[in-house]
Amino acid sequence: MTARDPERLAEESLALHARSGGKLEVRAKVPLRTKADLSRAYTPGVAAVCREIQRDPSAAFRYTIKGNSVAIVTDGSAVLGLGNIGGTAAIPVMEGKAALFKKFAGIDAFPICFESYTPGFVEAVRSIAPVFGGINLEDIAAPRCFEVEENLQDIGIPVMHDDQHGTAIVVLAALLNACRVTGRHFSDLNVAIVGAGAAGYAIARLLRCIGYDASVCETVHEIVVCDRKGIIHRQREGLYRNKYKFILASETNHLGRSGGLPEALEGMDVVIGVSAAGVLSGEMIGKMNPSPIVFAMANPVPEIMPEEAFTAGAAVVATGRSDLPNQINNALAFPGVFRGALDARARTISDEMKVAAAHAIAAYLKKPNRRRLLPGILDQGLVKKVSGAVAEAARESGETDRS
Amino acid sequence: MTARDPERLAEESLALHARSGGKLEVRAKVPLRTKADLSRAYTPGVAAVCREIQRDPSAAFRYTIKGNSVAIVTDGSAVLGLGNIGGTAAIPVMEGKAALFKKFAGIDAFPICFESYTPGFVEAVRSIAPVFGGINLEDIAAPRCFEVEENLQDIGIPVMHDDQHGTAIVVLAALLNACRVTGRHFSDLNVAIVGAGAAGYAIARLLRCIGYDASVCETVHEIVVCDRKGIIHRQREGLYRNKYKFILASETNHLGRSGGLPEALEGMDVVIGVSAAGVLSGEMIGKMNPSPIVFAMANPVPEIMPEEAFTAGAAVVATGRSDLPNQINNALAFPGVFRGALDARARTISDEMKVAAAHAIAAYLKKPNRRRLLPGILDQGLVKKVSGAVAEAARESGETDRS
Repeated sequence: MTARDPERLAEESLALHARSGGKLEVRAKVPLRTKADLSRAYTPGVAAVCREIQRDPSAAFRYTIKGNSVAIVTDGSAVLGLGNIGGTAAIPVMEGKAALFKKFAGIDAFPICFESYTPGFVEAVRSIAPVFGGINLEDIAAPRCFEVEENLQDIGIPVMHDDQHGTAIVVLAALLNACRVTGRHFSDLNVAIVGAGAAGYAIARLLRCIGYDASVCETVHEIVVCDRKGIIHRQREGLYRNKYKFILASETNHLGRSGGLPEALEGMDVVIGVSAAGVLSGEMIGKMNPSPIVFAMANPVPEIMPEEAFTAGAAVVATGRSDLPNQINNALAFPGVFRGALDARARTISDEMKVAAAHAIAAYLKKPNRRRLLPGILDQGLVKKVSGAVAEAARESGETDRS
Repeated sequence: MTARDPERLAEESLALHARSGGKLEVRAKVPLRTKADLSRAYTPGVAAVCREIQRDPSAAFRYTIKGNSVAIVTDGSAVLGLGNIGGTAAIPVMEGKAALFKKFAGIDAFPICFESYTPGFVEAVRSIAPVFGGINLEDIAAPRCFEVEENLQDIGIPVMHDDQHGTAIVVLAALLNACRVTGRHFSDLNVAIVGAGAAGYAIARLLRCIGYDASVCETVHEIVVCDRKGIIHRQREGLYRNKYKFILASETNHLGRSGGLPEALEGMDVVIGVSAAGVLSGEMIGKMNPSPIVFAMANPVPEIMPEEAFTAGAAVVATGRSDLPNQINNALAFPGVFRGALDARARTISDEMKVAAAHAIAAYLKKPNRRRLLPGILDQGLVKKVSGAVAEAARESGETDRS
């Protein structure tokens, strides 16, 4: 339905939102029927709880919602495929995400929407952190999203930009299963990434080329990243203007390729598109190594439609669309990742935790196949597997406050 | 129980909070069972709702939680009787308040806790406003609370510091009914206010001495305000250092009294204590006009215990305590005030709206008496009466975005 009749879906969606007046509610989970109930949940009894937390601030994780709450923070600058629509127009997405957090992971998430980015953004997010156990950054444009996330890593609770890492985790999971399905070794893969925004950068990182502890996981053999100007390489002019492009140039493309998409894809085993509709052609796919893996994740229209990719020789195709097989959907990752981080009371979401999440998602399918590389978000028990793996990785890598 | 066994109450309160892991939950109020549900509540359907709000930002009130949500914002600087305990230790109070908002007014409120006040406080609150339909400032120390509230009046949604105005509204309600009970005229009252913090300042304002449109409501005859240094008068040294004390000095105490509490109370009809335990004596009450009205609201120990006040001649006594008659509890006001403001889509909470709330609370009792000046917070239909009056006042005074 969703792909076939977008107008009807839009109408239904508007009607649903108007009828319910938004999608979330905040309610008490303790009784408030009698004066005695009120005296325990509110004044005067609550003072004892405040005093206990004043004495030991970590008690907030036990006595308040902090132990189970996540802020979904956006500046509205890169919302879905809609672009910079602002924080107010982004509320429906953040509410939807909060609804998913509760449904899939039992997490109490609340939208924090800045109308736009301001110089005080990071400080403001830091300021309102006390009540939250984690922060999910959402729909913030690159390259600002990288800085924002970096600058919040020291606040003592996990902070993750989902458009980067949620996507990267699910791509890694899909790629692990694509290797199982096509009989490849992960460490032999040569990968072209098309798009160097939030997702492209994080995918390149998680595929192990940048700043990684190699003990965590094997890395792919080679990565080449393209942005709108073509292949990112060390000789490109003006690279120093964008720290993150500079890092990509330093850490990828070891053979020093230059040129455009055809040159980037030539002789590669994998292409991962996180860019724009229709930028890949059958001809380009035809220049890759035999039976390549094609992830075309532009939304709503992929870089290349699955049929055309298969015709050009692709062995496996995944997209971002729910109406096509092999949807790469970060909702497979974020509920379990934050659930695991909260359960372990992690201070950050480390690379080890992300890799553990990807392996757990991939391993959920006993026998993946070309039309089923990944589990679905409604699959029973998925979040539990992912959160367990993430919490274990947090404890093993010492990223937790619980001893 | 609450007054008699505070240790047992503390234990019960701690146990309740630990068992439930905080008191709030955030959950979806729309179905999320099927892929079709998800496609309407989240991607891709939600994009249509975002576009609609981008086109017309006021549509956020209809399609998102903005129409029914309130941020409870604190810097943790003046929490209950505990003082400056910080934003993390204040979370249990803010959660309790959010629980009351939902229970009494159906409002979805969420705690926003700054660890402490910072120079970026007001800007940060302003920044995160898009998702909220109102802001309840809570437990912020005076005189900062006045500035913070003033600086947020232009953000287009109602902002109210409840420790000021919630308290002042209920004091006004109690005073209106004390007049009915003792056969006095409101406009004849001479009032001493003991305490010039958040509540004292707002009470003085609402009793009509400062910056008021006299058409709204008659005003009391005279007000004298005392702080720790005694009666506030125009000759006091160093007054210019605190803008709000300066305003009080300009607008109260027209007869130019000076001295301490005994001088302040002499010949007055009403004393309103919002200060500290035991500062009023029977002797001072004895110097007031015959059969005075005594509101002793220090918590948990009042300025004077009711028995002593009655012995000294008081006609009516109210306190802040739930275990004594005539509790002056701002929970009688804030749910209805914000409900009414949200229903009318008010831009601010005007003085007219506060006065309307006080009259509605007072009028809820057909026949108040000395032991029952005010309704109780669990009384059926109170919030509806208050919210109706507030919404009407908002519409009449043009404080609303709805035409």
